[in-house]
Order: sequence, then C-alpha cells, then structure tokens
Amino acid sequence: MAQPDKRRRILDAAVQVFAQFGFYNSKVSQVAKEAGVADGTIYLYFKNKDDILIQVFVDSIDEILRRQEDALADIVDPIERLSTFARVHFDSVAESRALAEVITVELRQSSKFMRNTDLKPFGRYLAMIAHIVEEGQAHGAFSSRLNPRLAARAFFGAIDELALEWAMGRRQSSLSDACEQTVDLFLSGLVTRPHAN
Amino acid sequence: MAQPDKRRRILDAAVQVFAQFGFYNSKVSQVAKEAGVADGTIYLYFKNKDDILIQVFVDSIDEILRRQEDALADIVDPIERLSTFARVHFDSVAESRALAEVITVELRQSSKFMRNTDLKPFGRYLAMIAHIVEEGQAHGAFSSRLNPRLAARAFFGAIDELALEWAMGRRQSSLSDACEQTVDLFLSGLVTRPHAN
Repeated sequence: MAQPDKRRRILDAAVQVFAQFGFYNSKVSQVAKEAGVADGTIYLYFKNKDDILIQVFVDSIDEILRRQEDALADIVDPIERLSTFARVHFDSVAESRALAEVITVELRQSSKFMRNTDLKPFGRYLAMIAHIVEEGQAHGAFSSRLNPRLAARAFFGAIDELALEWAMGRRQSSLSDACEQTVDLFLSGLVTRPHAN
Repeated sequence: MAQPDKRRRILDAAVQVFAQFGFYNSKVSQVAKEAGVADGTIYLYFKNKDDILIQVFVDSIDEILRRQEDALADIVDPIERLSTFARVHFDSVAESRALAEVITVELRQSSKFMRNTDLKPFGRYLAMIAHIVEEGQAHGAFSSRLNPRLAARAFFGAIDELALEWAMGRRQSSLSDACEQTVDLFLSGLVTRPHAN
C-alpha cells in the first residue's frame, strides 16, 4: 500500500539526483537507488520521470504557499506584506540549494511541464503576489497605474532570476541582501524623485 | 569549405526544430533536414546539438547587443536609456516567437550551457544594464542606494519572465504594454510616495 513517507522519500531523492546529474541525464533507477526503494516502487507513486519533476514542483510550491499564508496572515501594511513575501520566498529557496536548482533550472527542461496550463499551485503563487499589489492599490499605498498581474509576474521574474543565480553558485552576496534590495527596488524604483502618479 | 550563410541557415532551422519539438526531443538529423543540408554538414559547423543551442543563443545575444549599442548611442538621459533598452529587448523577442521560446525555455534545458561560466555575450548583456544604472546614479537621476549589478539582474529577470510568458502564448496583452509597465515599475516603484532615498 502507498505510504506518504515513501512518496516523500522518493521526491527528496529525486531532488538530489536531478540537481546532481540534470533532469534529462537522470534515470528513474537512480532515484530509486537514492531513495532506497525498488525501481518498481516508484511507479506506485508516479507515472514517469516527468511526473516526479512535476510533483517536486507542485509539492514545493504548495509548501511555500502554506508558509506565505502563515507569514502574511496578520500583516495588513502592503509594503510589509510585499517584503514578507520576498523574505519567505528567499528563505525557502535558501533551505536547499539542490531544490532551488531543480526548481529554477531543471524544471524548465520538461517542456511537457511548461506547456501544462493547469499548473494551479504556480498560478496561485502568482495570484498571491498580484493580490498583495491590488490590496496595496485599494489601500492607496501603491499606485493604481500598474497592472497588478503584470507587476506580479515582473516581481516573480526578478526574485526567480536572483534565486537561479544563487542556486548556480554565481552569486557572491547573500540572498537576504538580494531580498532587501529587490523589495526596495520594486517599492521605490530607481529614480531619485518619483514620477507623477 | 564552410560558408557563413550555411551556418546561418542551420541555426535558423535549429530554432524552428527546437521550438517545435523541444531541445531534448530534437535530433540533429531533423535540423539538417529543415536546413536542407546533409547530416554530416552540421558537424562542419557545430560540435553537437548542445553546441548548436549555445551558438543560437550567442548569435542572438550578439545581435541584440549590437542593436542595443546602436539604439543607445545617442541617448544620454538615464531614464530614456533604460526604457530604450527594454523596448529593444522586447522588440527583438517579438520578431520571432520560436526564437523567444528557444531562448527563454529550451536554453535552460542544456545544463552544460547553464554551468558554462564563460558566457561572455550574456555577461555583457547584464553588464550593459548595470552600466545604465551606474550612469544614472552618477548623473544623480537614479538613487545610489541600489547595487547596480543586482538591479540589472532583477530587471533582466523581469523582462525575461514576461518574454517567456509571451513566448508560451499565455500572455493576453501586448509586449509593448508589458515593456512600458515594466520600465515604469523599475523607475518609479509601486508606492505612491517615495521612501527616503
């Protein structure tokens, strides 16, 4: 019978294997070996290698979504909400360089995944950012000239790019520094004086 | 003897094939067929399939770099420079959805590529954005509180993410709208009043 902890063990093993060998060079049998299960056991839980990658992503986003919801629950100030969101994102990425690498790099390898428009957790993640922007606009704290969905996508692009750079080991400075500066940049912009709002 | 136009034809064919079938599912023989050359001819110009993808990327970035240099040559105002950079980037992406898909999606499939730290054209592209920020800071137009390299990476992440969304056909609104809003966001930020600089 399927056991939740065995599923979890396979996903954790997959993250290590995919990060080390790359998704396309990895074999399901390597994941099985790393997880300490028989090859056939994998197929009790997952359809194929693509499915393992998708589940790694979906589970991770689900987990980060839960953390974001917890962290944001009692915060009203839109500025505080956006900076908390970025901090929880970077903290989650920083927990595992292997997971960060799999999510930011290896994930895009699966074109099956990229074309799947039913990626509800990722859509919910983007919607969460857009919602913070909308609330900020409703409060009058954020300018209403910007499309919240587009701002959310740009914000996600920026934090994902910095996470990727960090996961690839090219980033010298810390993720917390990157987090602080990114939030500052999105809140206040580059120019020393604001444009007309 | 190697002919430049044959090399170009192979690269153009590769973009079509990679965009249609995905990089990993594509075969060198498909690229040869699409280019109208013999399989062996490919290897006069390229080491292997990875090398073709890398050359697609390097050539494209080289071309965009040239366009950016031309477009920015006579512009002094930092705000104008940043918005011109974004416009040239989005215009280049918009010229070919297939190329945009290969660059934003398929490229990340090649872990060989991702780990290659000698990606000079990409480094030059990021440096070009960082330089615009630095100049703006020197002019006093941009706040000096932000690290130019980090701001450049965040800016690239944002425009790359919006280009990816567009290439994947999920984006409803136009790229020119995305361009305008992204530049506005990076220049003036979300908040209705500026933080202390």
